[in-house]
Amino acid sequence: MKGDNDVMIDALPSWNATPTKEALMAFVSTVTTPGNGYVPPIERIAAFDNDGTLWCEKPIYVQAAFIFAKWQAMVAADPTLADTQPYKALVEGDREWLSNIVEHVPELVKGVSEAFGGITTEAFEEEVAQFFQVAQHPHFGVTYTQLGYRPMKELLDYLRANDFRVFICSGGGRDFVRVVSEDMYGIAREQVIGTSVPVTYRDGELIRTAGVEQPIDDGEGKPIHIWARTGRRPLLAGGNADGDVAMLSQAKFSLLVHHDDATREFAYDSGADIALATASTKGWTVASMADDWATVF
Amino acid sequence: MKGDNDVMIDALPSWNATPTKEALMAFVSTVTTPGNGYVPPIERIAAFDNDGTLWCEKPIYVQAAFIFAKWQAMVAADPTLADTQPYKALVEGDREWLSNIVEHVPELVKGVSEAFGGITTEAFEEEVAQFFQVAQHPHFGVTYTQLGYRPMKELLDYLRANDFRVFICSGGGRDFVRVVSEDMYGIAREQVIGTSVPVTYRDGELIRTAGVEQPIDDGEGKPIHIWARTGRRPLLAGGNADGDVAMLSQAKFSLLVHHDDATREFAYDSGADIALATASTKGWTVASMADDWATVF
Repeated sequence: MKGDNDVMIDALPSWNATPTKEALMAFVSTVTTPGNGYVPPIERIAAFDNDGTLWCEKPIYVQAAFIFAKWQAMVAADPTLADTQPYKALVEGDREWLSNIVEHVPELVKGVSEAFGGITTEAFEEEVAQFFQVAQHPHFGVTYTQLGYRPMKELLDYLRANDFRVFICSGGGRDFVRVVSEDMYGIAREQVIGTSVPVTYRDGELIRTAGVEQPIDDGEGKPIHIWARTGRRPLLAGGNADGDVAMLSQAKFSLLVHHDDATREFAYDSGADIALATASTKGWTVASMADDWATVF
Repeated sequence: MKGDNDVMIDALPSWNATPTKEALMAFVSTVTTPGNGYVPPIERIAAFDNDGTLWCEKPIYVQAAFIFAKWQAMVAADPTLADTQPYKALVEGDREWLSNIVEHVPELVKGVSEAFGGITTEAFEEEVAQFFQVAQHPHFGVTYTQLGYRPMKELLDYLRANDFRVFICSGGGRDFVRVVSEDMYGIAREQVIGTSVPVTYRDGELIRTAGVEQPIDDGEGKPIHIWARTGRRPLLAGGNADGDVAMLSQAKFSLLVHHDDATREFAYDSGADIALATASTKGWTVASMADDWATVF
């Protein structure tokens, strides 16, 4: 997107003409224009959180819906599972137990390992692909791949047109997101960073094992993962929650998506209080879904 | 590189017109030509070992030369270090001790951690960059960045021109190779896969810590790392040693560089016996430096 095209083509048609859009375009113009603030293409890395930043994360994370669907199928096949956690909470509809991730890490990791441990990476991919074909969002009634935010997808395109390499940096599962990242966002699998499970090699096969690799790709894990994967700090980063603060703090331009649109999506600050306060202190750009986005999906 | 250009432009001028070159070009033609064997661009991943495959690895690994230079400076600053391993072996010129990596893992890792643990990733990069500016190869008398193999660099360009994304998959240090990968090979930092040390986040800084992340990026660790980093198996892979066998076994086209040129480089099969035998069994393409390469550097 050269400067002389800006007049004719709006690269971000789903963004309203607000200071947020202006700030995004001014930053991209600065780093791509020779002179003060210019950044060579090789250093133009952008990193985006996924849940709540690129796609809808309510009422539950998409990956949680995937895992719950699998657990339900497991309980149907073996009803005795319902006597133990985490299956018990799911069967009983105990949302409080299930959403208390911090306190129930061992049981939740055990459940995920029982569901997907010991299978090949290809078999896991097929299960994920199958889920995305059939599962529907409980509120919007469409498949989850239709719930990427259009303004953000335009932003990814705009950045790529300006020689950025765009990465997803998700607290969720790397191998889960990769199955849809290319079709949904034009982001190649190798540009998806996320939380992962250990994989072992056995006679040419790659097998998912139990457990979770540390650090997970959330909070302070995000800058660590981005460094490990890219060898750089992000020039531009986008997030929406407290788990994105460390990543956003590393970037030259930080965009915080604010879920304040109860009409078109959901309005919630829970889990983003620190991020919103930090945005205010550090002068990050906050994208109000209600005011800055002409379209959501 | 379209088929109709092949007649006019030789994309691999440093390769002699042998069956090896023919096999490489035939494979690339097959996967890029619509029809049987076609592979969509998004799936075109190539992975290359670095030491002995893209650059010279004798008489010692470049990274070993870097570490030894640092240890020598440390001993000069604190001569009491020379009483303990690994510094003792270095001071005494005990090549046998130093090259017995398997038996001396704890001491060697300790030495590396003492040399580079606790410093920021940026400080480490500066030390590496400084080394590459001044250090000279003991045999060729040039800086190490001049010792990339020209035929292989042409191959990387050729693959990229055919919409492959090219990765380094090095048993050596990821953060070490990244410092020179862009200038030497046109390979962006995010496309360098390698052995790594844990990094922690502290007040916005990324700090290298002690130890080595498991698995290291050698042997069966290579396909695991490639999967973790790209979400794919390599379509084409290149290596030269036994530690590359697992990676080469995953690829559709496997290239083994054979060091049989005592005149222009070095001739050695040690450390490549299993690789050479496997190449013969599985029909991998073996590149003879003596016969297939018109130029080495």
